Amino acid sequence: MSRTARRHLLAIQGQSVEDMTHILDVGETFFEVSRRAVRKVPTLRGKTVINMFFEASTRTRTSFEIAGKRLSADVINFSGSTSSTSKGETLRDTIKTMEAMNPDVLVIRHWASGAAEHATRHTRAAVVNAGDGMHEHPTQALLDAFTIRHHKKKIAGLKVAICGDVAHSRVARSNAHLLGMLGAEVRMAGPRTLLPAELSDTFGVAVHDRLEPALEGADVVMMLRIQQERLGGVLIPSTREYARKFCLNARRLALAAPDCLVMHPGPINRGVEIDPDVADGVASVILDQVEAGVAVRMAILWQLCAEQSEPLPLSHAPAP
Amino acid sequence: MSRTARRHLLAIQGQSVEDMTHILDVGETFFEVSRRAVRKVPTLRGKTVINMFFEASTRTRTSFEIAGKRLSADVINFSGSTSSTSKGETLRDTIKTMEAMNPDVLVIRHWASGAAEHATRHTRAAVVNAGDGMHEHPTQALLDAFTIRHHKKKIAGLKVAICGDVAHSRVARSNAHLLGMLGAEVRMAGPRTLLPAELSDTFGVAVHDRLEPALEGADVVMMLRIQQERLGGVLIPSTREYARKFCLNARRLALAAPDCLVMHPGPINRGVEIDPDVADGVASVILDQVEAGVAVRMAILWQLCAEQSEPLPLSHAPAP
Amino acid sequence: MSRTARRHLLAIQGQSVEDMTHILDVGETFFEVSRRAVRKVPTLRGKTVINMFFEASTRTRTSFEIAGKRLSADVINFSGSTSSTSKGETLRDTIKTMEAMNPDVLVIRHWASGAAEHATRHTRAAVVNAGDGMHEHPTQALLDAFTIRHHKKKIAGLKVAICGDVAHSRVARSNAHLLGMLGAEVRMAGPRTLLPAELSDTFGVAVHDRLEPALEGADVVMMLRIQQERLGGVLIPSTREYARKFCLNARRLALAAPDCLVMHPGPINRGVEIDPDVADGVASVILDQVEAGVAVRMAILWQLCAEQSEPLPLSHAPAP
Repeated sequence: MSRTARRHLLAIQGQSVEDMTHILDVGETFFEVSRRAVRKVPTLRGKTVINMFFEASTRTRTSFEIAGKRLSADVINFSGSTSSTSKGETLRDTIKTMEAMNPDVLVIRHWASGAAEHATRHTRAAVVNAGDGMHEHPTQALLDAFTIRHHKKKIAGLKVAICGDVAHSRVARSNAHLLGMLGAEVRMAGPRTLLPAELSDTFGVAVHDRLEPALEGADVVMMLRIQQERLGGVLIPSTREYARKFCLNARRLALAAPDCLVMHPGPINRGVEIDPDVADGVASVILDQVEAGVAVRMAILWQLCAEQSEPLPLSHAPAP
Repeated sequence: MSRTARRHLLAIQGQSVEDMTHILDVGETFFEVSRRAVRKVPTLRGKTVINMFFEASTRTRTSFEIAGKRLSADVINFSGSTSSTSKGETLRDTIKTMEAMNPDVLVIRHWASGAAEHATRHTRAAVVNAGDGMHEHPTQALLDAFTIRHHKKKIAGLKVAICGDVAHSRVARSNAHLLGMLGAEVRMAGPRTLLPAELSDTFGVAVHDRLEPALEGADVVMMLRIQQERLGGVLIPSTREYARKFCLNARRLALAAPDCLVMHPGPINRGVEIDPDVADGVASVILDQVEAGVAVRMAILWQLCAEQSEPLPLSHAPAP
Repeated sequence: MSRTARRHLLAIQGQSVEDMTHILDVGETFFEVSRRAVRKVPTLRGKTVINMFFEASTRTRTSFEIAGKRLSADVINFSGSTSSTSKGETLRDTIKTMEAMNPDVLVIRHWASGAAEHATRHTRAAVVNAGDGMHEHPTQALLDAFTIRHHKKKIAGLKVAICGDVAHSRVARSNAHLLGMLGAEVRMAGPRTLLPAELSDTFGVAVHDRLEPALEGADVVMMLRIQQERLGGVLIPSTREYARKFCLNARRLALAAPDCLVMHPGPINRGVEIDPDVADGVASVILDQVEAGVAVRMAILWQLCAEQSEPLPLSHAPAP
């Protein structure tokens, strides 16, 4: 498992504190690279990264593409809807076909939980899970942890509230695992219809059916995106009703610690799960999360492709 | 404003003759680069250009992509239809998200007038307007001016007729501003339903409701693309009717000066606004416009990213 | 014609044994490049390759994109559905527009037979046919020949069965021409409704309306993809009926030579034209075909762009 964990990044669950902390540490180096005048290092020259996105995505796909290109890798985009999967090919055959082109990394987003893990059985390339169904989204959790550590200088001991449609959220799952592992005290809150009985046991965290108790004294609040397809259905009666009870507004945020960070994996629904004033307020680090995403993904790609052979591109100028 | 003008390229209106002429001059250098055996210079290595196209486009998107790649920039394509804008994200949030990935240039095409200008409020990157609603398309005007100057060795004093759906055309607006500024005598012609009363005042040009008087003695004729969605509606009764009165054919072209240039921003509707014989005839410089487009966009990207720090890649061979 | 043949790759028909063998030989060099730790050579730096795909494709488009990038070319993707062809532009005008951007190679897939050949009249760039209607798919035939030669160390004298919807298959046509030219004994098999009377004459091969006689003693079996749009129609009554008679299963494969290779251009329809056990069995070289595809396309791009000027990137390490 740990050998697999080093070859792929499929999930947070089962990882070691050391491995995850190492990614965050390496991410700091690449964070600095992305702010240089020349935002590129030759580290992954001659490596091939294939972005396989079977679900629509802007920020995650773009983030991986920029990360790969800034490392000088060749990045190929592959989207499920225009691909041979639309001709009825199985995921397994699609993976094996890409594998035969000798890629170094397959970045996979798929609507089915377990898709990335499934892919590892059919390729020698490193696989990065960029979100699989309702299972995990480990790079999101890592960039979130990076952002928290960047601002708070620590994670252990922080009170983190993860709020919204917890039940269906791969972001919530990965974050609960990672932040718990790194010593944070995680709480969750959401509508009762989105809080399965076993949630508390699964994550080992306190679960609330109202926002307020979760926000009490929180150092970090992560609001989850409410999926449009759940609104107006059985689980959530209406946008207005949801917002009335679960929108993070200034009044509710006042319950948290004074220097509380507000986070959201994006894209945000203004006025639904988060009030515009809060999304754009001083507490918000939502765009810091996006910036951290490129750095953390550079760290992950570097680690999977080159750590054995190449030194970290530290403070020296990149090769011409 | 002039400081903004140097940091972004949003519109022709309000620009100085010096700045616009400078882009045309730099374009000549890059025109030569694109005809070399090795069509690439290392000038923008380590810079990130994001093509954000919220409207379908072939030539403009490809032109910017080739321009960026020939300058060695990392170019990322982002299309509105497959992006999180389809998940309801606001333009502002999409721009801020891209901004957080530390791009150097955002090239934006959008169906809303003012979108590119709006974007500048949410990014430190340079913004290039690649067409915004019915407002402006400044890089098109610059490549058109480049093409005219390339063939005529001057712009001042030339008689230029811009013909077709002038009212809705961002290409017409940008060209009227730029060519007027550079000393050309601009005339416009189109169906009366597409000639708002204030048109003449807005552009300070002569306006005709028939082609013929506009063509009289013209040194350059620019035909505009007729948008399919306007045909068969209130403004234009039918393709046939439109073509009968406003199609540029050989007979009408004979009214122009003997060495008149025929231009069109493309894609052309053969037999609607332009006769195939004219589109493919000796007077046509339509494909020269496309070639100029890559060179002018290289000049713009270079100017926005590197002019302060990097010399122009003149006649020396590019670095290996 | 031979001069054209050297400047473009439009079809197998009409080619010389020498030219085709040369591509296979060069492909061996690039096959090795794709297995290096650094899968990249600087050979086509500063060259522009435009992938123009008017039909959906995963493996062919990705294969060409990876091939171009591993040669250090700038690769631009252009898909028909999001392009100005959807605004009614003719293929000719689209080609001329791309041509004006000074590309070195246009890779064209199109639903119309003859599209790639048509394109050559409107561009000075080298044109590679990546599949045109029901006409030819020459790079597929070359990668298939590469795969056979790689495993069998020869092609001449081998018995090759091409089976399935032969009538509509550009893959079958190109393979029949190439393998015949290289000395193989080609046989074809398919449902009678898909076997036009002139087929035998056209290809100069034996034609069977059952699989079994074609498989008898075969050294290679190529199964063709059955197009979904033909199933349930006049030509093929149902998937089940087709599979019952024309699916390659272990029992039928036993009729072939003991070391017979099983091939398929992909994507495969498991259980329709090929049994999963056979597709994944020891005889299958389907994924070897995909790997060969990148190498052969690198050879073709190199030959069209650089053979005159650049040595083959043999066993030396690539430039940094």
